[in-house]
Amino acid sequence: MIIVMKPGASREQINAVSERLVELGFKTHPIYGQEKTVIGAIGDKKALSSEAIINLPGVEKIVPIMKPYKLVSRELKDTPTIVRIGGVPVGGRGLVVMAGPCAVEGEEQLLEAARAVKAAGAQVLRGGAFKPRTSPYAFQGLEEKGLKMLARVREEVGLPFITEAVDTRDVPLVAEYADAIQIGARNMQNFRLLQEAGATGKPILLKRGLAATIEEWLMAAEYILDSGNPNVILCERGIRTFETSTRFTLDLAAIAVVKENSHLPVIVDPSHGTGSWRLVLPMARAAVAAGADGLIIEVHPDPARALCYGPQSLHPETFDRLMGELAPVALAVGRGLALNGLFPEQAGTLAAGK
Amino acid sequence: MIIVMKPGASREQINAVSERLVELGFKTHPIYGQEKTVIGAIGDKKALSSEAIINLPGVEKIVPIMKPYKLVSRELKDTPTIVRIGGVPVGGRGLVVMAGPCAVEGEEQLLEAARAVKAAGAQVLRGGAFKPRTSPYAFQGLEEKGLKMLARVREEVGLPFITEAVDTRDVPLVAEYADAIQIGARNMQNFRLLQEAGATGKPILLKRGLAATIEEWLMAAEYILDSGNPNVILCERGIRTFETSTRFTLDLAAIAVVKENSHLPVIVDPSHGTGSWRLVLPMARAAVAAGADGLIIEVHPDPARALCYGPQSLHPETFDRLMGELAPVALAVGRGLALNGLFPEQAGTLAAGK
Amino acid sequence: MIIVMKPGASREQINAVSERLVELGFKTHPIYGQEKTVIGAIGDKKALSSEAIINLPGVEKIVPIMKPYKLVSRELKDTPTIVRIGGVPVGGRGLVVMAGPCAVEGEEQLLEAARAVKAAGAQVLRGGAFKPRTSPYAFQGLEEKGLKMLARVREEVGLPFITEAVDTRDVPLVAEYADAIQIGARNMQNFRLLQEAGATGKPILLKRGLAATIEEWLMAAEYILDSGNPNVILCERGIRTFETSTRFTLDLAAIAVVKENSHLPVIVDPSHGTGSWRLVLPMARAAVAAGADGLIIEVHPDPARALCYGPQSLHPETFDRLMGELAPVALAVGRGLALNGLFPEQAGTLAAGK
Amino acid sequence: MIIVMKPGASREQINAVSERLVELGFKTHPIYGQEKTVIGAIGDKKALSSEAIINLPGVEKIVPIMKPYKLVSRELKDTPTIVRIGGVPVGGRGLVVMAGPCAVEGEEQLLEAARAVKAAGAQVLRGGAFKPRTSPYAFQGLEEKGLKMLARVREEVGLPFITEAVDTRDVPLVAEYADAIQIGARNMQNFRLLQEAGATGKPILLKRGLAATIEEWLMAAEYILDSGNPNVILCERGIRTFETSTRFTLDLAAIAVVKENSHLPVIVDPSHGTGSWRLVLPMARAAVAAGADGLIIEVHPDPARALCYGPQSLHPETFDRLMGELAPVALAVGRGLALNGLFPEQAGTLAAGK
Repeated sequence: MIIVMKPGASREQINAVSERLVELGFKTHPIYGQEKTVIGAIGDKKALSSEAIINLPGVEKIVPIMKPYKLVSRELKDTPTIVRIGGVPVGGRGLVVMAGPCAVEGEEQLLEAARAVKAAGAQVLRGGAFKPRTSPYAFQGLEEKGLKMLARVREEVGLPFITEAVDTRDVPLVAEYADAIQIGARNMQNFRLLQEAGATGKPILLKRGLAATIEEWLMAAEYILDSGNPNVILCERGIRTFETSTRFTLDLAAIAVVKENSHLPVIVDPSHGTGSWRLVLPMARAAVAAGADGLIIEVHPDPARALCYGPQSLHPETFDRLMGELAPVALAVGRGLALNGLFPEQAGTLAAGK
Repeated sequence: MIIVMKPGASREQINAVSERLVELGFKTHPIYGQEKTVIGAIGDKKALSSEAIINLPGVEKIVPIMKPYKLVSRELKDTPTIVRIGGVPVGGRGLVVMAGPCAVEGEEQLLEAARAVKAAGAQVLRGGAFKPRTSPYAFQGLEEKGLKMLARVREEVGLPFITEAVDTRDVPLVAEYADAIQIGARNMQNFRLLQEAGATGKPILLKRGLAATIEEWLMAAEYILDSGNPNVILCERGIRTFETSTRFTLDLAAIAVVKENSHLPVIVDPSHGTGSWRLVLPMARAAVAAGADGLIIEVHPDPARALCYGPQSLHPETFDRLMGELAPVALAVGRGLALNGLFPEQAGTLAAGK
Repeated sequence: MIIVMKPGASREQINAVSERLVELGFKTHPIYGQEKTVIGAIGDKKALSSEAIINLPGVEKIVPIMKPYKLVSRELKDTPTIVRIGGVPVGGRGLVVMAGPCAVEGEEQLLEAARAVKAAGAQVLRGGAFKPRTSPYAFQGLEEKGLKMLARVREEVGLPFITEAVDTRDVPLVAEYADAIQIGARNMQNFRLLQEAGATGKPILLKRGLAATIEEWLMAAEYILDSGNPNVILCERGIRTFETSTRFTLDLAAIAVVKENSHLPVIVDPSHGTGSWRLVLPMARAAVAAGADGLIIEVHPDPARALCYGPQSLHPETFDRLMGELAPVALAVGRGLALNGLFPEQAGTLAAGK
Repeated sequence: MIIVMKPGASREQINAVSERLVELGFKTHPIYGQEKTVIGAIGDKKALSSEAIINLPGVEKIVPIMKPYKLVSRELKDTPTIVRIGGVPVGGRGLVVMAGPCAVEGEEQLLEAARAVKAAGAQVLRGGAFKPRTSPYAFQGLEEKGLKMLARVREEVGLPFITEAVDTRDVPLVAEYADAIQIGARNMQNFRLLQEAGATGKPILLKRGLAATIEEWLMAAEYILDSGNPNVILCERGIRTFETSTRFTLDLAAIAVVKENSHLPVIVDPSHGTGSWRLVLPMARAAVAAGADGLIIEVHPDPARALCYGPQSLHPETFDRLMGELAPVALAVGRGLALNGLFPEQAGTLAAGK
């Protein structure tokens, strides 16, 4: 790290900082400028020591040089990680679409949704059994009953499923049924939940917190990898900004930033990211064009009667149209999408590189 | 609620919306404008039904009329709630200062901090035993050992203490020792944790999420009240904005907005809210002048060697100076502060009303 | 508009509001709920009268029903507007790419850039002669000398050009040379500049302010249309958020929101929108997939020596690669891009609808 | 500045960067760490050269060491600047309150407001003659007629006045009448306007842009000082955040951050900063407690009939109450406020230091 001293810092102050750095195991390299002195400190293993220095007299600021994450970084592993959800590879050539209702409301609703999304080309079923809701008076999910429905529908339809865990105490139960565990945006920094979910060894879909920087998001993934589980899929789902015409602002540049810094796959949730089904279509296309490894989309057989997030849920027919629109975009960026006679193997014939 | 129809919505669409509203138990009052029709719907008990309407054909938007929270609202209870932490009333005339180290690092450090903050006038000790940290490689707290130290120092110094719970599974343990339970900003919408902490009956300090609107914050408090526990203290601790010269942007207007809408007490954390001890002093004064019921401040006997958030921790001497600065500001707004010979009873002699 | 009265508003207060509304020319429709009364007010022509009501006793809030803009809205004109820059149509089937250096630094640099971008398929040249810079010590542009260079290069290369006006006093000069006038993000609400630029009749590229809501952006366009000039192209260029790994957060959902509400064409600036040339490629593809009518991209013959925004400028070879990547994405969404033997007429053969 | 090389940057890349730095006039100090090399570059006069380096191969990032501003900085001038508006010193011991209507609507309205605010203790009259409005259909100000009214009322009541200039072409006219020129938030980076207003030599009130960082704000002030005019007063007026219950989020920590970095006085606008007159009172008190040198507040004789921003305007009686509330807060922080028999000379008797 680099320690920038205040203009006018005394020689004693500079020496005291250097001594503290040496005490902490660093080698120091002072550079004396006309107005300011800076001290280069080598040996910063985990970017954690700045707090021990910043309060010393004469210090203006500390500039970290090393990234705070290790296990998730491209510097450690330069090849893309492929995470398998019940046999479906996420992070490879194929574009993976996960779809289904926001909440499991009943077996009929779930079965209808699952059949529809499978028919349109989705490869993973999504559906919430535990629902974290802003209001205590809103529908909170069917819990284990919902998990059982998901498991039965998986058998019936032949799609692996992903579902959210919201409490460390439920993680074993969720892991017993689900093919992958989702960590919601509001829990991105619920570190105990990250560790507990990570410890199951199941693939983890880690949604970006709605006010989390990309660095904090990668640090949250680091918690899971540090728990011994390398199967993490990142999911951009919109950040909170001043704009009110959409529920969140979908930060698609985050896809490329993540890919520059990490080997983990990254998908996009245009349903929560916009809050409006009409915006799901263009933003799903945009996410694929930006390089996302997949999408997670809310589809409900009857959005007008959904118990949860109806406004952002696609009707199965609209989802089918979306999948039709995605196929040529996926091809255009060299990705395959399994649907309607276009297979991953045919991908890239039009592709213009990446 | 008010349903605004799109310009050009057909009579059939308007009728379909009205019928659905009646089906949901509302009385409807259509108003036909030149360009748009709006439908007033009366009977909206919990502001939850808009999702059932928004997707109907011809609907442009839904405008809620009722607030989504009930139990925390001034409409339900117009007198300020006073919450007691080990006998110290929060929300009354007296201004309450809670202070102590970010993390409990050892008994000596804690005892020294506790004695210092008590001597300066603090009435509640704060200190973290479970620390949610952005990095898995950072100090995570002493856990139960830390709780025991807090309990011993409480006996020794005579200050009740507040400490954070970060996992539903730890709540019983924390409740066994602590006088009040803190819910951190990153857990504000960890609804299970809210319910579990609420169920202990202990006073709950609910920090505002760093991207939470005031309405969402009050909804989170509603979860706790709905669990049967009315002892909630709200804590503004800064929101995330584009400004980078402070760690967060302390939103002091939130104090007055909360007080307009809720009967719950609200305090301010200028330490996390600014991230820099130099800014703690002016922002603590400002918070009191804005009408806060109290402050929670990080004080460490040796900030330069703190294991956690040293840059924002006050040295005991600086804390003492701060308390000296707060006293006349508190008086100026009609609040008492127990210190240095100025007692709450004398407050308000200079006060210019509120 | 809808006036929501406070719970407990008296009959006199309700009557006083109604009378004031009638005095302002509205018809009123009160709806009496159990807890609150709301008053529907019909006749709100310009959504401007709420300020006359909001301060009346007993009023809780005002809900506008009409949009505040008229001339830019789809409600007034439902067919897309096509704006021509020197013969190049923006807003039709073809995707228009505008490219060139951030600042005109000299005729050689400009000529080289212009030739390169034309060869790669750009249809409009961009280049700044007046540069608004954050620092008074940064390069401020060549001013009229720069405009003359742009005009000469236009002749030489055969590309119309767009350049920015930053001061009402320079507008006539800029209009004398340029094919289109750019209003920068920091001037989006410089209403005099909008009016002055609008009055020239030239096509106006209106960049979104970095903290402007989509509604405010459309209101700024309304100023130009209201000055009698219908030739406005909107340009999304990133908004300011808490995320620091990109200079701004490119809000691609804004494209679809604008298209839902307005007939004006909308393009995207991925160079300023990300601040990094590496992110320009994926975000340009994403913008096209999201439905943008075009792109404006910074290209510099030698980015490492650019006087302005080098880090976000593409080298001509990279720009050529980008254009190659855009072509199939454009085709995939039914848009044409004039380059390398792919012509707009061939567009859409793969297109999947909208 | 510090150049951080990517991990794996080659010796040739490191040398090329060093050579370019030397070519630009820097002395270089490379530090070779285990994973990364950083190069210290001394001689960076204006923090402007990073763009010439950032695109060189192997460079990861540039860390500026010097602040980008000079003239406004405490490093150049450590004593507070006092700016006089018609004899009223801003930035000294006394707290200055500027008050009056948002817009000059007529002479009677203005006179009534001026008398009221003077009686309550305001020392400067504010009132807009040129109004930048979000909507082209809103009241745009009386222009020169308004300036003349302001001048007549100044004579009649004996208060200097401040008013806004929104166009470089109007600056001479405004300067002819006004005692101080206001630059609005939306024009903070209208650099030509800054230069033109600066060149009049009149005191300039520079409002913070609603998405401007404190550093950008100081850079804008630098433009004015660089034009030869040292009489700049900064004005915090709220920044744009996701919170919607207030119009803006008033960033009071900015006061202390500015004072740490600059010698310029800083005042606060709680009217625009909150958008609601009820919040003006607590936030005005908070601003004073945080160390503001003054306030600018909207007062209208009949807020319910104001042509502009009625909801945030104080009735004269409420303003009088506010001034009464401010006096003890000002005293508490060692500042004087001229009103009701309390004079600046008596200030500080209760003050607890800074």
